[in-house]
Amino acid sequence: MRYHKIPDETVRRLPIYLRGLMFSAEKGNEHISSQSLAASVGVHSWQIRKDFSYFGDFGTPGVGYNIGKLAREIQKILRLDVIKRAALVGVGDLGSALLAYPGFGAYGLDIVAAFDIDPQKIGRTISGVEIEDVSGIDSLVQRSIFLAIVAVPRQVAQQTVDRLVAAGIKGVLNFAPCKVEAPKRVKVITLDIAMELARLPYYMPVS
Amino acid sequence: MRYHKIPDETVRRLPIYLRGLMFSAEKGNEHISSQSLAASVGVHSWQIRKDFSYFGDFGTPGVGYNIGKLAREIQKILRLDVIKRAALVGVGDLGSALLAYPGFGAYGLDIVAAFDIDPQKIGRTISGVEIEDVSGIDSLVQRSIFLAIVAVPRQVAQQTVDRLVAAGIKGVLNFAPCKVEAPKRVKVITLDIAMELARLPYYMPVS
Repeated sequence: MRYHKIPDETVRRLPIYLRGLMFSAEKGNEHISSQSLAASVGVHSWQIRKDFSYFGDFGTPGVGYNIGKLAREIQKILRLDVIKRAALVGVGDLGSALLAYPGFGAYGLDIVAAFDIDPQKIGRTISGVEIEDVSGIDSLVQRSIFLAIVAVPRQVAQQTVDRLVAAGIKGVLNFAPCKVEAPKRVKVITLDIAMELARLPYYMPVS
Repeated sequence: MRYHKIPDETVRRLPIYLRGLMFSAEKGNEHISSQSLAASVGVHSWQIRKDFSYFGDFGTPGVGYNIGKLAREIQKILRLDVIKRAALVGVGDLGSALLAYPGFGAYGLDIVAAFDIDPQKIGRTISGVEIEDVSGIDSLVQRSIFLAIVAVPRQVAQQTVDRLVAAGIKGVLNFAPCKVEAPKRVKVITLDIAMELARLPYYMPVS
């Protein structure tokens, strides 16, 4: 039911707020007004207040939001307090970059396992993670890893997702530029990097 | 005005259709039905027909869509027929992966220039692109490059975008996990890879 409680668009903005709160905390702030948060994340303050109203407002008039309290609450709603560990499948150029990517930390996420089929890569360590044979996927759940990032070639994306689903994975972030099928019990988000670039020219002024 | 002609959600789906058409053409198909296209891209066929209705339907009853004709039309609408060349700023792990990324080709896009501040990197060639000193940004427009991909650390993302704007760039795909400001005449899309992963746990079943 949680699924339907908060609008998807609000769920989509919660990580933006969380990121903004983390960066503000980095600067040593303990409180932030909805106006400052709005300015830092680029969302209208009325939208922020509306989004927060779905799970209770944490602001104190004149003081603003307690950054730590609000961040923990958002992490709890997004379940980032319990789901922190992710596995990577496919350690090519993009996969290696994802292993080295510092941005996951802002959300408390960590790639703790990586898999590939290339014997040349298996056993090597990238950004502190040792690359394992892809057969290790089958024991992910025993290792309490329920989240997977797929960065394999398009041609093998579906079979990779099928294997992750069979292994009991519950969420997949798919970087392969194609649609992948999964049962309803598994949430799949496909992120086609090139597609975002392909949207840009439409909005560019004609010179 | 073009800006307002087609709904953003339709513009967002056009690259998905284009990608599906390209893959179908790869398989040697010349025509595709809205049902087959729907199945291959994971969008309802009624949605596809509705989206295409904004710029005229190209289907022939019983035959389906002419893949080449439809693909060219979508490229024209997205202006991918004129905007094909992009520059990359920041050749770190992610930037290098983007240079090597094959996915841009499906949209006719090509990263033809790359910039970094690291003397160790300048002059090196990655995936056929020689890394130039960041000062080269200022001459991008003279080289008919109006689209830029920013893959620099968050702390220098805004100044990088400012320089690109000053150089006359019209579209920016920003991978730095922060909001960047740009004048209305420049379209900026920020893609925070980690944020997509951070949305996943909310939708994962509670075990």
